[in-house]
Amino acid sequence: MANGPSVTPWDVSGTVNYDKLVKEFGVERIDSAILRQIERAAGELHPFLRRGVFFSHRDMNWVMNEYEKGNKFFLYTGRSPSDAVHIGHLVPWMFTKWIQDRFNVDLWFQFPDEEKFLFKDSLDFKKVGHFLQENMLDVIAIGFDPKRTKFLVDTLHANLMYKPACEVAKRITLSTIKASFGFDDSANIGQAFYTAMQSVPAFLPSYLSGRTIPCLIPHAIDQDPHFRIARDVLPKLGFPKPASIHSVFLPPLSGAAGKMSSSIPTGAIYTTDSAKAVQEKVMKHAFSGGQPTVKEHREKGGNPEVDVPYQWLRFFEEDDDKLKKIHDDYQSGKMLTGEIKQVLVDLLVRLLERHQAARAEAEDKVNDYIFKCQE
Amino acid sequence: MANGPSVTPWDVSGTVNYDKLVKEFGVERIDSAILRQIERAAGELHPFLRRGVFFSHRDMNWVMNEYEKGNKFFLYTGRSPSDAVHIGHLVPWMFTKWIQDRFNVDLWFQFPDEEKFLFKDSLDFKKVGHFLQENMLDVIAIGFDPKRTKFLVDTLHANLMYKPACEVAKRITLSTIKASFGFDDSANIGQAFYTAMQSVPAFLPSYLSGRTIPCLIPHAIDQDPHFRIARDVLPKLGFPKPASIHSVFLPPLSGAAGKMSSSIPTGAIYTTDSAKAVQEKVMKHAFSGGQPTVKEHREKGGNPEVDVPYQWLRFFEEDDDKLKKIHDDYQSGKMLTGEIKQVLVDLLVRLLERHQAARAEAEDKVNDYIFKCQE
Repeated sequence: MANGPSVTPWDVSGTVNYDKLVKEFGVERIDSAILRQIERAAGELHPFLRRGVFFSHRDMNWVMNEYEKGNKFFLYTGRSPSDAVHIGHLVPWMFTKWIQDRFNVDLWFQFPDEEKFLFKDSLDFKKVGHFLQENMLDVIAIGFDPKRTKFLVDTLHANLMYKPACEVAKRITLSTIKASFGFDDSANIGQAFYTAMQSVPAFLPSYLSGRTIPCLIPHAIDQDPHFRIARDVLPKLGFPKPASIHSVFLPPLSGAAGKMSSSIPTGAIYTTDSAKAVQEKVMKHAFSGGQPTVKEHREKGGNPEVDVPYQWLRFFEEDDDKLKKIHDDYQSGKMLTGEIKQVLVDLLVRLLERHQAARAEAEDKVNDYIFKCQE
Repeated sequence: MANGPSVTPWDVSGTVNYDKLVKEFGVERIDSAILRQIERAAGELHPFLRRGVFFSHRDMNWVMNEYEKGNKFFLYTGRSPSDAVHIGHLVPWMFTKWIQDRFNVDLWFQFPDEEKFLFKDSLDFKKVGHFLQENMLDVIAIGFDPKRTKFLVDTLHANLMYKPACEVAKRITLSTIKASFGFDDSANIGQAFYTAMQSVPAFLPSYLSGRTIPCLIPHAIDQDPHFRIARDVLPKLGFPKPASIHSVFLPPLSGAAGKMSSSIPTGAIYTTDSAKAVQEKVMKHAFSGGQPTVKEHREKGGNPEVDVPYQWLRFFEEDDDKLKKIHDDYQSGKMLTGEIKQVLVDLLVRLLERHQAARAEAEDKVNDYIFKCQE
């Protein structure tokens, strides 16, 4: 679509300037007042909040105020199946699990299995169906509470979703989706309609129960255009605007601009990668902030700001003290490039071992998570 | 949308020039060769065929050739619920029943309950749901074979229809629907997507069975733009182009241009009208081709070509000899305006009595007609 840096639900490229996005998208920075409010309710702050991995929001204060008054929200997030899950995908899910556990709330997890089908010529429903099954295992492996988690698959739950999607669609013009997503008249009519389906889980619990339940959507910032439209339309249907909280992107292994993408295998660590593959990918491909020679590195130190191993540790090393020591040692030159890479490898291997064990047990649990309509 | 005469699925106004439509839409006139072929297979010709009420088609010869080779087609037609059914609606349904009976074929009857909802601000799903139930009774009252007739309701069968609709939608651009339906960017995204849902029954039996079954769609000519698009897309999905056969519009009682519309109550006879209402409407509102005075009428005779009672008798009086006698007597002045109106009233009252009796028994049968997926 556009050239230059771009952040849309289908394209994240170029160096992402989050300050600019905050202004352009009209979202709010997470400030210390909200952090205090979350900490009061949750009893702690997730590292992603302490470290700005989740950096902006819409109406998070309203959600927290309602929560403090006893009006619980529900969570909504999702995964559009089209490829294998990589560790970048885990970021919002890990955070979502933390909120579910700390606030004891329902999670509606959407698998819009038509979305990527509509956007990629090369995808048919058979391929999507394969990734749907695989991706569900990864989501279950995160450890969401099966009693409080409901999977919605657009084509399997169309009886439930198509009618409310039409309610939304009636109130969105072609002009709006062109302006929001950069479509032109060569877009297909399924792409045009799709955002209505993505809006449905944001009000489905209220629609089904007849009560007004606040919705909180943790997601990577590129999905914001969908929910901006939903926030515009839902009040017209008598539902509150969904609130949201947004993460930055996990940078690709190569350190290149944009976000980690499954379409560049050497730039991504998949949830099914072996310890050997992780070792090889990090050692070979992780962009380093270190100096060209050990001698020079010992003298000048490394640059954690551009060093992908360090940047990734900011996402996945939960211990603040450990992280600080790594930062300082690397910056001072005490820790070498090979060493910081090995720290990351060890951490990822532990994380993936746990994930893969949970994933292996997930196959029998899929049916427990699929939402069943009480009709 | 456009000014001047217009024939689109949502607007039929002005004097309809069928010759011009045949050219514009690129359909073929029904000729004597096809009539002979239909008569050979059916054992007779329906009056609508003998009298040109069904006047044009697409690929009807292919359907008949396949039928003669033993490859049976299925029928597909529908009703978009938004208002009470009037006798103009019965025309394609009566013809569809005749084909079902004569050729012993399946009928898929679609009730796209989202269509008018998406096009009319004043309609909500509650109102549509009311008309859906009412309209189903009228369709059942036509007497379709319950073993061979399957009702599809878009919101009730979305689990079945949304996925194949996405297959179609992926291959239709916004440009195409703008050109086909006269939409601009103020159209809503549901309207844009809708034609994909209308295309689904045209290949659903093939999609579900894995066999290639020809589809024949009897419909009023205004629906052609939808099926023109379906004919373009379906071969790309490996399904044959649906064939179709098209009726003219029953003129409104007032004789005005356009088609009978439920939104002008005095211009329409509803299937639930009492004998008294029929008598009053025909006597008061039917546009007459007679002369201003009885004396003048006896001298100059009436004009059956513009006389709505005579035009309606061409649709509903099945006996060719009777019809000819009415025509000649009216044209010669032997039959007066009040008399030809009374002939029509008597015929409509008989037709509606039968219809209403069948309609009263239809309530218990709805469930037999609703298509059940074997999953």
